[in-house]
Amino acid sequence: MTECAANASRPGVYILTTGGSIDKIYTLQGEMEIGPPAARELLERAGATGHTILPVLAKDSLDLTSEDRDRLAELVNGCPPGAAVVITHGTDTMPETGRHLLKHTGHTGHTDHKTVVITGALQPAAMSHSDAAFNLGSAILAAQTLPPGVYVVMHGTVFDVATVRKDKAQGRFV
Amino acid sequence: MTECAANASRPGVYILTTGGSIDKIYTLQGEMEIGPPAARELLERAGATGHTILPVLAKDSLDLTSEDRDRLAELVNGCPPGAAVVITHGTDTMPETGRHLLKHTGHTGHTDHKTVVITGALQPAAMSHSDAAFNLGSAILAAQTLPPGVYVVMHGTVFDVATVRKDKAQGRFV
Amino acid sequence: MTECAANASRPGVYILTTGGSIDKIYTLQGEMEIGPPAARELLERAGATGHTILPVLAKDSLDLTSEDRDRLAELVNGCPPGAAVVITHGTDTMPETGRHLLKHTGHTGHTDHKTVVITGALQPAAMSHSDAAFNLGSAILAAQTLPPGVYVVMHGTVFDVATVRKDKAQGRFV
Amino acid sequence: MTECAANASRPGVYILTTGGSIDKIYTLQGEMEIGPPAARELLERAGATGHTILPVLAKDSLDLTSEDRDRLAELVNGCPPGAAVVITHGTDTMPETGRHLLKHTGHTGHTDHKTVVITGALQPAAMSHSDAAFNLGSAILAAQTLPPGVYVVMHGTVFDVATVRKDKAQGRFV
Repeated sequence: MTECAANASRPGVYILTTGGSIDKIYTLQGEMEIGPPAARELLERAGATGHTILPVLAKDSLDLTSEDRDRLAELVNGCPPGAAVVITHGTDTMPETGRHLLKHTGHTGHTDHKTVVITGALQPAAMSHSDAAFNLGSAILAAQTLPPGVYVVMHGTVFDVATVRKDKAQGRFV
Repeated sequence: MTECAANASRPGVYILTTGGSIDKIYTLQGEMEIGPPAARELLERAGATGHTILPVLAKDSLDLTSEDRDRLAELVNGCPPGAAVVITHGTDTMPETGRHLLKHTGHTGHTDHKTVVITGALQPAAMSHSDAAFNLGSAILAAQTLPPGVYVVMHGTVFDVATVRKDKAQGRFV
Repeated sequence: MTECAANASRPGVYILTTGGSIDKIYTLQGEMEIGPPAARELLERAGATGHTILPVLAKDSLDLTSEDRDRLAELVNGCPPGAAVVITHGTDTMPETGRHLLKHTGHTGHTDHKTVVITGALQPAAMSHSDAAFNLGSAILAAQTLPPGVYVVMHGTVFDVATVRKDKAQGRFV
Repeated sequence: MTECAANASRPGVYILTTGGSIDKIYTLQGEMEIGPPAARELLERAGATGHTILPVLAKDSLDLTSEDRDRLAELVNGCPPGAAVVITHGTDTMPETGRHLLKHTGHTGHTDHKTVVITGALQPAAMSHSDAAFNLGSAILAAQTLPPGVYVVMHGTVFDVATVRKDKAQGRFV
């Protein structure tokens, strides 16, 4: 039984966390590393209750493997029909993960009625001018309101996962 | 001609700002007062471009008058068909403003196809643990994805404007 | 026995907290009120250990009475000889409290070798652009390095308590 | 003529910046790198005016060379007699730089009456829970109040530069 199903009685959004810039912290040794999911504190500050945070991975998204993405797909497939799912993710490979999920979760045919939204942050949630709270708020709303499918939500914009890409020089999704 | 129409060529969300806790700053004289719209900096941090901020009022929402709400309704009515509108607003009377707009903007019959989302913050955007960025991110997404109507979006939840109320003791919308 | 003496075995600075802007928080009801001493979290973030925080009052400094200041003087008098004392305080009446302490703690004659530094913040510690951490860091250092006496330390400057005043229009001590 | 002397008519503290964690920012490409001196914004928030910021280097302190430290010594030597000097610096080699300055600025004999205080931050100033403001406030005060010599000021504590070391596991100076 997958983790998502184990929490199926909760009405809110399932938030699968995978690491990435959003979760990075600055260690006592002066390195950035993936900390615990930032989503927890961001939800708490916003009074956003009833959601389920499922920590899946703690990786820079450039290090995600095909097996990691298979695991995410399996977790999404294990969520109840109609579920709203947010995946917090490093920004560098959001499009790749999105297209992997599109292929492996039956979303292409929109047959299983789940809405999966991938989001993250260009600045870690621990930075004072981070975009993390804005993006997580956007993604949680999007997961509840968009039709079934797989999306990237960044900058307050919904991107089609089939065509979205990160403009690395600008630090923007287009 | 209303301000909204004057910006009708821009593709993004119209953000009407009215003051409220989200915009409060602490003055040199030790008082909280309404500052410039916090939405500007929140959008900038999130890289959320293409939206139009229209400062309408700078008031505590307990001080909003029927004339103020008429002005908001008029501005919404002046927005182009299909427009996505976010109103940043003090939390105390969001439901009243929402119901006023429902009555005076033709939304009851859903005849004009605008989506109006009222949001704000329980903690000013200037506080380090504010819910402002999360709520604005949610509202901007909601304005683009919800069917035409008038809504309150707080805590990452969409509330029906006909029944929403603020539980003042808990500081929560229910 | 006073509180200060009860902690006399600790080597660090005694921090007497009285409220003021530095400790203000924004309540669920949308009011600013005095919260718990901000000094605790500020010290923790700075890794500043070994100090003793003694919450004395939780007041706006305009509301401090002569009895309140007598109580502060009594507490300072109860601290061990040579003690380093910081008082966190609202900005409006720092000079008055300073001169009261000068008169009632034997500091005029510098007979008891204590260094008392009054500080606070123009922006509450809970605001993201607060001056609280900078001022508390300055004051803690000043209490350990200045000769016995009573001082106001704000903006990284040591002010003579006999002549310091707050320029309320500028929000600065001069 | 050194930069310090070029500003000799200003009464405040000379702040030589060298980079280090305090100045690190998170880039659009997801790397931490040295940004512009954080001291500028920290002073501004604190209303600490009249000081002179002299950007000298922008390096991780592990990358500082003997030539870099010679340059710092030369700059300190060029400051006017009695000057108060703060050096913002990466935490890893503060003791080495301190001892280099002690040897090369005539401070061992306390012959030239300058007070040099090395400080920095374990968490970049750009992080919301940074110790940067507290440390800079402490250092600026220390530079004005300590007798001539070279010091490290961190955690609100003055350390003897001859014996201070960083406990890297704990992230503390001892």
